[in-house]
Amino acid sequence: MKIPPVKGTRDFYPEDMAVHNYIVDGWKKVSLRNGFEEYDGPIFEYLKMFQIKSGEEIVEQLFSLTDRGGRDLALRPEMTPTLARMVNQRISSLPRPIKWFSVPRLFRAERPQKGRLREFFQWNIDIIGEDSVLADVEVIFTTVNYLRRAGLTSNDIKVKISSRKLLSAVLREIGVKESTLDSLFPVLDKKAKLSREAFTELLNEHIIGKHVVEEFSEKLFGESDHEKRAVSEIEAFMEAKSVDEIPKILNLRSSSDVMGAIREVRKLNRVLEQWGIGDYCTFDPSIVRGLAYYTGIVFEVHDIAGEFRAICGGGRYDNLLADFGGPAVSATGMGMGDYVLELLLREKGLLQVPKRDLEYFVISTCDADEQAEEEAEKEAYQIIAELRSMGHSANFSYKMGSLSKQLKEASAQNTENCIIIGEEELKEGKIAVKNMVTRKQERKKVDEFLSGLESVKGV
Amino acid sequence: MKIPPVKGTRDFYPEDMAVHNYIVDGWKKVSLRNGFEEYDGPIFEYLKMFQIKSGEEIVEQLFSLTDRGGRDLALRPEMTPTLARMVNQRISSLPRPIKWFSVPRLFRAERPQKGRLREFFQWNIDIIGEDSVLADVEVIFTTVNYLRRAGLTSNDIKVKISSRKLLSAVLREIGVKESTLDSLFPVLDKKAKLSREAFTELLNEHIIGKHVVEEFSEKLFGESDHEKRAVSEIEAFMEAKSVDEIPKILNLRSSSDVMGAIREVRKLNRVLEQWGIGDYCTFDPSIVRGLAYYTGIVFEVHDIAGEFRAICGGGRYDNLLADFGGPAVSATGMGMGDYVLELLLREKGLLQVPKRDLEYFVISTCDADEQAEEEAEKEAYQIIAELRSMGHSANFSYKMGSLSKQLKEASAQNTENCIIIGEEELKEGKIAVKNMVTRKQERKKVDEFLSGLESVKGV
Repeated sequence: MKIPPVKGTRDFYPEDMAVHNYIVDGWKKVSLRNGFEEYDGPIFEYLKMFQIKSGEEIVEQLFSLTDRGGRDLALRPEMTPTLARMVNQRISSLPRPIKWFSVPRLFRAERPQKGRLREFFQWNIDIIGEDSVLADVEVIFTTVNYLRRAGLTSNDIKVKISSRKLLSAVLREIGVKESTLDSLFPVLDKKAKLSREAFTELLNEHIIGKHVVEEFSEKLFGESDHEKRAVSEIEAFMEAKSVDEIPKILNLRSSSDVMGAIREVRKLNRVLEQWGIGDYCTFDPSIVRGLAYYTGIVFEVHDIAGEFRAICGGGRYDNLLADFGGPAVSATGMGMGDYVLELLLREKGLLQVPKRDLEYFVISTCDADEQAEEEAEKEAYQIIAELRSMGHSANFSYKMGSLSKQLKEASAQNTENCIIIGEEELKEGKIAVKNMVTRKQERKKVDEFLSGLESVKGV
Repeated sequence: MKIPPVKGTRDFYPEDMAVHNYIVDGWKKVSLRNGFEEYDGPIFEYLKMFQIKSGEEIVEQLFSLTDRGGRDLALRPEMTPTLARMVNQRISSLPRPIKWFSVPRLFRAERPQKGRLREFFQWNIDIIGEDSVLADVEVIFTTVNYLRRAGLTSNDIKVKISSRKLLSAVLREIGVKESTLDSLFPVLDKKAKLSREAFTELLNEHIIGKHVVEEFSEKLFGESDHEKRAVSEIEAFMEAKSVDEIPKILNLRSSSDVMGAIREVRKLNRVLEQWGIGDYCTFDPSIVRGLAYYTGIVFEVHDIAGEFRAICGGGRYDNLLADFGGPAVSATGMGMGDYVLELLLREKGLLQVPKRDLEYFVISTCDADEQAEEEAEKEAYQIIAELRSMGHSANFSYKMGSLSKQLKEASAQNTENCIIIGEEELKEGKIAVKNMVTRKQERKKVDEFLSGLESVKGV
């Protein structure tokens, strides 16, 4: 019976696994280097955990399941709710700020289609318990630290930064009702994926005639065109090239909330410069993020050519821990999927995946008579077992074919040294040690060879 | 809203994650050292994939889910069906033998109870496409290579080895019907968990009056007691201390199948001796393995004190690839869960988990006036950013408290060197570099310090 894999999932054959490990190892190394500690949680949680704050798109795409006790569970579509739960459980004993990272496997039940995965890996870094913009900068710095060391320059990628706080304040100033803000964010988030006309139309749909504009706005603009004017102001804001343009776009109606958010963005820019990544960063108020729980600075990294979806995204979410029943503790973080990153690194020729390698390949080539063959093989196995027991990597060929075939197999495994047991060596009670780089070969007694090696420490 | 974790799952806080990584890193290192290549597959497959050959216990404990297209899926309860599917997909292009390993996350919907996890990790190694007993030995050797280097001696653990081929041949010889063999294995597998009386009773239930004994057996023993005699012969076989006892237990009625299987076990023992792990291994015909698909050598590793469930288990499964629609290709492998292993290593004091560490901790202590404070912090951030950009690990304190508090924080992170920017250093345009082991401290210009460091290669 032949059963295919499920669409939208991936098989990692050894060559795919090497690429995957190259990416994940890089994420882990950079996280540790930047002072983050690793954590993980379960693959599934109670369904309702993801229905609280993850936003409509994620809730629609949940993989839900029921256990034998009839409990409603779901495969995690993102890590942040689990993080909030875990931190809340120990909030009084964890020293703050909490700097944690994770590389969870995540699931979204999208309809199978090209380029959309239903199962993927995501690098998550979060700083919890630190209000200052410095924490947002450290999250962005750590992200750039990885991307830059992976070989991506400021000509390849851009960190586009905005502020939910600024966006909310501007929308309020324009006259959008407080109660409809949350439902407007996913709409605004679609801007980059739509043409100018399509976006205007979508915005009209959500603003015009939907009574989302407050009365005081009517007073400002006159009853007939205040909603149209709101749409065009929202569009103008989202196209601003610098925070300095924003008071002008609002006709200098800027509230103290707007000015406070602008000051925060300016401070962020200054600190990003201090951390030496100003060239990677740009202000872009079209960055909204789809998720409902962001409260401050938000950002996404995009390839400058615009060929791919966002490489990663993140931001500040100061209310989430309280939303999950904990105290009011501020937080900021980032999530980067493995799929778009791999496509981009591959396109730029930056997938420097380490080759399979091996310290020793043990070759037995005695085929004159059965007894000699058996004896040579027995010696080969003893040497392999001894090398591995000492902590060295060693392999052999099950086929035990000709010397040249076995040497080829050793080369394919990128072997440093071959240990050869031929007829002559066997008679002399010796082995030949061949350095596969210098091609030099010398005969040694087995004991002499093994006692000359150091045992590797640890497992 | 406070939501608890799902019972039977684990949260990995950083200290738990360190233990988890210690175990998984060891598994990966030993696999590579023994010439295995890493692979992975999806967390879920089509439900029917696990209903074919995994055996009743696993099928009962499947976490099943339905996707939006109405497809029946299941979270993987074991890795072997996925492995068989993946190998079958590329069977003509993969050079044999295939030596692969994986560390999958697996799921079993057991009723939540103490010590039973519904989500766990398992180390899998498999050799596919090699008939000889050498492949079974290499699987067992690799298993012991890990356990021995983790610190477990032959006084702590034992590899208990038997043969499904031998068991089947003996059962046939005793008179058990061919068609009921498969359903008898899970019954026999329960022996270790039951008292002698309870096991006899269970066996009686499955043999007596159930017509599982063939007619020719009746002829041998006489009609009245042949079934009772079969039960006692099965029990005697399962308690044999050596393969040499088996012909006697069967009253020398041994068929050529029985003798062939005995010869194979003897050969296995010889080769295990050659590989230097004879002291870890013992013949134990009570080892059956619950899974339905085993066909040859089977084994389990147990703690000698008998405090824990099996640490791992494995064996030969020569028919599985064909069962999944592929060609007849032989295979042998092993699976080791993380949970029992961790309990055992902890009990023996062998969890040598590496501590968190850090190359540099950057400390700013200028609090005389605001300007100096700002300048020192700015310099600290520049140094941290530069160190991390060069590939070095560096951290700092968000609190920027007193020198002694920051030094304490640095020690808690196991820091090698502290970089200190105090008032005097700032005035001189220098930093103090303090070696945290020797406690020696010297002043350097920032540029001089940074240019003296080497950039780390790679990400």
